[in-house]
Amino acid sequence: MKPTPTSPSEPILAFGAHPDDIEFGCGGVIARETRAGRAVHFVVCSRGEAGTNGTPTLRSAEARRAARLLGATLEFVRLDGDAQLEIRAAHSLKLAGIIRRVRPAAVLAPSLASNQHPDHYRLGQLVRDATRLARYGGLQALNARPAHAIGQLLFYAVSPDAEPPDLQPVLIDVSAPEIVAAWTAAMEAHVSQMKTRNYVDLQLARARVHGLRAGVAHAQPLWPNDPLVFDSLAAMTRAAARF
Amino acid sequence: MKPTPTSPSEPILAFGAHPDDIEFGCGGVIARETRAGRAVHFVVCSRGEAGTNGTPTLRSAEARRAARLLGATLEFVRLDGDAQLEIRAAHSLKLAGIIRRVRPAAVLAPSLASNQHPDHYRLGQLVRDATRLARYGGLQALNARPAHAIGQLLFYAVSPDAEPPDLQPVLIDVSAPEIVAAWTAAMEAHVSQMKTRNYVDLQLARARVHGLRAGVAHAQPLWPNDPLVFDSLAAMTRAAARF
Amino acid sequence: MKPTPTSPSEPILAFGAHPDDIEFGCGGVIARETRAGRAVHFVVCSRGEAGTNGTPTLRSAEARRAARLLGATLEFVRLDGDAQLEIRAAHSLKLAGIIRRVRPAAVLAPSLASNQHPDHYRLGQLVRDATRLARYGGLQALNARPAHAIGQLLFYAVSPDAEPPDLQPVLIDVSAPEIVAAWTAAMEAHVSQMKTRNYVDLQLARARVHGLRAGVAHAQPLWPNDPLVFDSLAAMTRAAARF
Amino acid sequence: MKPTPTSPSEPILAFGAHPDDIEFGCGGVIARETRAGRAVHFVVCSRGEAGTNGTPTLRSAEARRAARLLGATLEFVRLDGDAQLEIRAAHSLKLAGIIRRVRPAAVLAPSLASNQHPDHYRLGQLVRDATRLARYGGLQALNARPAHAIGQLLFYAVSPDAEPPDLQPVLIDVSAPEIVAAWTAAMEAHVSQMKTRNYVDLQLARARVHGLRAGVAHAQPLWPNDPLVFDSLAAMTRAAARF
Amino acid sequence: MKPTPTSPSEPILAFGAHPDDIEFGCGGVIARETRAGRAVHFVVCSRGEAGTNGTPTLRSAEARRAARLLGATLEFVRLDGDAQLEIRAAHSLKLAGIIRRVRPAAVLAPSLASNQHPDHYRLGQLVRDATRLARYGGLQALNARPAHAIGQLLFYAVSPDAEPPDLQPVLIDVSAPEIVAAWTAAMEAHVSQMKTRNYVDLQLARARVHGLRAGVAHAQPLWPNDPLVFDSLAAMTRAAARF
Amino acid sequence: MKPTPTSPSEPILAFGAHPDDIEFGCGGVIARETRAGRAVHFVVCSRGEAGTNGTPTLRSAEARRAARLLGATLEFVRLDGDAQLEIRAAHSLKLAGIIRRVRPAAVLAPSLASNQHPDHYRLGQLVRDATRLARYGGLQALNARPAHAIGQLLFYAVSPDAEPPDLQPVLIDVSAPEIVAAWTAAMEAHVSQMKTRNYVDLQLARARVHGLRAGVAHAQPLWPNDPLVFDSLAAMTRAAARF
Repeated sequence: MKPTPTSPSEPILAFGAHPDDIEFGCGGVIARETRAGRAVHFVVCSRGEAGTNGTPTLRSAEARRAARLLGATLEFVRLDGDAQLEIRAAHSLKLAGIIRRVRPAAVLAPSLASNQHPDHYRLGQLVRDATRLARYGGLQALNARPAHAIGQLLFYAVSPDAEPPDLQPVLIDVSAPEIVAAWTAAMEAHVSQMKTRNYVDLQLARARVHGLRAGVAHAQPLWPNDPLVFDSLAAMTRAAARF
Repeated sequence: MKPTPTSPSEPILAFGAHPDDIEFGCGGVIARETRAGRAVHFVVCSRGEAGTNGTPTLRSAEARRAARLLGATLEFVRLDGDAQLEIRAAHSLKLAGIIRRVRPAAVLAPSLASNQHPDHYRLGQLVRDATRLARYGGLQALNARPAHAIGQLLFYAVSPDAEPPDLQPVLIDVSAPEIVAAWTAAMEAHVSQMKTRNYVDLQLARARVHGLRAGVAHAQPLWPNDPLVFDSLAAMTRAAARF
Repeated sequence: MKPTPTSPSEPILAFGAHPDDIEFGCGGVIARETRAGRAVHFVVCSRGEAGTNGTPTLRSAEARRAARLLGATLEFVRLDGDAQLEIRAAHSLKLAGIIRRVRPAAVLAPSLASNQHPDHYRLGQLVRDATRLARYGGLQALNARPAHAIGQLLFYAVSPDAEPPDLQPVLIDVSAPEIVAAWTAAMEAHVSQMKTRNYVDLQLARARVHGLRAGVAHAQPLWPNDPLVFDSLAAMTRAAARF
Repeated sequence: MKPTPTSPSEPILAFGAHPDDIEFGCGGVIARETRAGRAVHFVVCSRGEAGTNGTPTLRSAEARRAARLLGATLEFVRLDGDAQLEIRAAHSLKLAGIIRRVRPAAVLAPSLASNQHPDHYRLGQLVRDATRLARYGGLQALNARPAHAIGQLLFYAVSPDAEPPDLQPVLIDVSAPEIVAAWTAAMEAHVSQMKTRNYVDLQLARARVHGLRAGVAHAQPLWPNDPLVFDSLAAMTRAAARF
Repeated sequence: MKPTPTSPSEPILAFGAHPDDIEFGCGGVIARETRAGRAVHFVVCSRGEAGTNGTPTLRSAEARRAARLLGATLEFVRLDGDAQLEIRAAHSLKLAGIIRRVRPAAVLAPSLASNQHPDHYRLGQLVRDATRLARYGGLQALNARPAHAIGQLLFYAVSPDAEPPDLQPVLIDVSAPEIVAAWTAAMEAHVSQMKTRNYVDLQLARARVHGLRAGVAHAQPLWPNDPLVFDSLAAMTRAAARF
Repeated sequence: MKPTPTSPSEPILAFGAHPDDIEFGCGGVIARETRAGRAVHFVVCSRGEAGTNGTPTLRSAEARRAARLLGATLEFVRLDGDAQLEIRAAHSLKLAGIIRRVRPAAVLAPSLASNQHPDHYRLGQLVRDATRLARYGGLQALNARPAHAIGQLLFYAVSPDAEPPDLQPVLIDVSAPEIVAAWTAAMEAHVSQMKTRNYVDLQLARARVHGLRAGVAHAQPLWPNDPLVFDSLAAMTRAAARF
């Protein structure tokens, strides 16, 4: 069976450890996809109950509003709770069940760089395991739904420290004004998190620096888990990176 | 000025240090491109005069025949001679002049992995420098032709030892029977190099191992010099890598 | 107490996460050792119950047959079950108990490269921990048998993705026709796993590519956990690697 | 042609950039080899004329005396002069000519780690190139002597900063009292270099730290340029590293 | 709120997996700090009950005596027991509670290098997580004490194998005779561990090798978890590293 | 001779390959030092004669004006010319002569990351070599001035691509409004380079992203060539990095 490019009708599935991780880490990419008509679904694995600012109720509402602004659907899933995530096979099985239900073309998850919030890289590992479990035929616990092989697992970085130091990213152009506007609005929806520092402004600065490398105004980096496969060189010969 | 995907009418430019490097390192990719109607031009920087087998005259003829079998044009350029290549600014200028003349969408060059024939990684460095010189407006020595910015520089590996150990490749599907046949014929055209070991068979084995990672029968790896830039996730969600 | 080379009468102990991992990852090395008269014992930590093809009963039988073809003995040990392995101290203790019972010269385990089936690299970590526990004198749970220090822990890679990207392997020459034949027969004994792709052929292709680097027909790579220690340069001056 | 272990009658060839590099970087290994009856030849590529202490004449005499104490022969070769070594093809050709004349089983050279004296890593690169040139049949400049393929190129580190940070060394046991004594005497022969710090004492401390990893009193690390090739696991199962 | 240099009145908090880890891994640094009047507190997470030599009671007494010799206070905390440490959120919470109680300027923990005793790198991970938990305001389990943000987390290496291979350390000058004497006495207080090898002598040799890189007699390396932040270049322009 | 912290009266010496490199890569750090009363001297190794915009005359004038705005002195030195820099011993000697004349506490140079303008990383290598040559007593060519050992060599990155991917930087706080203002003015002095993109704005965005990691408004990263050496932990316990 030869692999084929996925159809635009297949959704994107994005996982976040806390209510604002997806928006800060890859919100521009999400806006880009939903504007192009692709369905995107968020799975958020805590309600930020360990955070310094905001209550779980407030932060859940902020997350729902941010997802709506980006054109994505959202669900919460309970694992071990904010700041206490552990690597457990049961968690991966639960996430694999969601993958089989949503049947995405691509999955987005926080990076595996270990020098960041431990919930982030542990969720990244759980999701990576889950994408494998989702495609094995013999798992009793997942029998309710047929196996599903995703097209690509892509990691995002919530902050500069979370960028994998020794891997080369792919850069997604998020420069269109309506994309920047939607992304900005989604980040600003997390009102409770804006007290100590202007993270919105900082993420836009970060996207400008990555844009510089891509030859565009704003770009967000993603790190593919597996080598990218192409049919020809055409996809790779776009004029780029010219500092 | 926003970068745009290159047109299929723009050629590919491939550099090799010895008469058979391009064929062994990325011949399948070349066959794939020429079959799709894209022009490919080879620049070979020695005539193999230091090799144990074959004379410069014989090896030049073999290279011309191999290029013809792949549908590519070929020229020889004299730098320091086989096994004696040095890093000199004059060499990069010379190669930059060729880039300005050919005006390619993408450039292919041997990888920078240092544990291989020194001509290979030195040529890789010279070509990388040349792609920069080609786009600077102020160089007197290159004034005869307008500046040219290529779309992407991609490195190939002549042998397993030349694969950059810590970078993730992109994999090009070269499985189509007519591609494998053309590539095989081009490698076999280097008759003088077949005496000590069956390199053709070994390169096909290597392509099968890389194909395994891509979920196809045969694939060849390439390593992009700069981060790849995409407009959306669509290009990256092809079903892949499922050992 | 000065370390001394191990006696050929000491066995090799190989751990696998699934019924076919050892055969695919280092079967040629196993065949090489048993042909030379060394005892080899397999410990398989699941019955492949999560796999798409084959039942646990069928796969156990295939594993026993493959071990027999390689001249090795085999036992199954139950940890968390296929695709659900977790890092637990109790697992390492159990594996350390086996090491004390078998008292091997060398231990083989799946590599720690994290971009592969999670059971693989987690088993690699558990075995690495177990080799340490086996040599500590004070562990009550292991008191039944005297402490044992192995000579070397060597990692194998079930697939190309499992090869540690930034470590240099040692290459074991498995080119002798009777070695290749025994290894091939052992891989083919896993009949249930041959439906979707010809993994036997692919592993032989992989061994040919590694053989190319070793200057032999077929080689399998292993990655030592600790620096190799030698009495002189004699062991390292075999003519090698000449692509 | 199958590679075979080298005979103990084949010599070892060691290159140094300055008169004392070989002694400090791998003198214990040299003593170990000459005590075992193997011929060792030193090629020293400057007379230390840029150093703060000692004159070229004095330092040449010290080097000759140190080589004699280790049981090695020595010759000086002129490249660019102390502290001014450049990467030139002519240098590699000259060193390749020496390799063809001496026909060693193994070659020792300073490591490629770039954060050390530039003469050191540049000589390492030149020697690596030279080992390749020595085995190519077509090089006119080397025609006077038949091609020669060495068994292994091994890098040594003159100081801790020169140890390649991301490669695993092999450790050579140099603990025997007569080895330590010969090595110490050879280092102490460089009287002119002992004014500012006690390098002898420091190198012995370094060998003790490496010995700790090898489970012996003193060891010196070497870094193989190519993967080591073995016929079986027997060579690797010596009891080791047990901090 | 602008970060400010910590006051010398704030304590240092050091974590060890076994009764002698802190002394061997960073005892010289501890002696340096207490001599300068800074309070240092040790948290030891087992009593060495899995070790080959010594009983838990004996080793606890040795640890108390060693801490006293270094001028530090000490407490034991029970996690999973010697040689059986697991990554659990509950452990990190417990350690975070200690951080909130002690309120240190800097925290010292064993390095994350995975090729060492698993208790070491797992404790390093738990401490890293704990330093984050300590500063989050919303964690119910830690409510008894106010959040605390430490100034820097620094990793130490108990042995050469535990030194992170690809990170550059900072070097702390521990050359003063009274520092070396206090450190030596603290290591020698672990009498039960001196039977098999002279670890004291070996750690001093290691400190001399690191001292060589620092241009001093003895130095101990530490690896900062986060980039160091400075107000100017003045702190970094001390004359150093001149092998 | 024990190393001692350098006096604030010793100057800083910064090398740039092109007229604007120092300002863009570490201009904030320069402003911070000159505001604190330290002398800073720039050495610029081309006049930008290969650039697309601006003439050598114009660019020289811009560089002089920028240096003045930062409070630094400036000289031009001719090596191989813009875009054609080669690694030559004569260049390092020339730069070493400047180091002996200026006698700096610290030297700033472009980073060694190879995926940037080749003049940048080659100049970085030449400067690194030069700092060594400057301290050797025996070099005839440098005899006119006494040897000089600098305190630390620090690399800067002109662009994000030039940041060494696998090294941890130190971060210098450049947040003070007068520092940002002086740095901005110095970058804007390079009027000829502002035509194609707003590099000033981009560098400030980059400094904000690095500031995020340092817990300050703006920071610039530097990469030390040698391990930093400290007398105690006090310098490292400033509260930092809290995304």
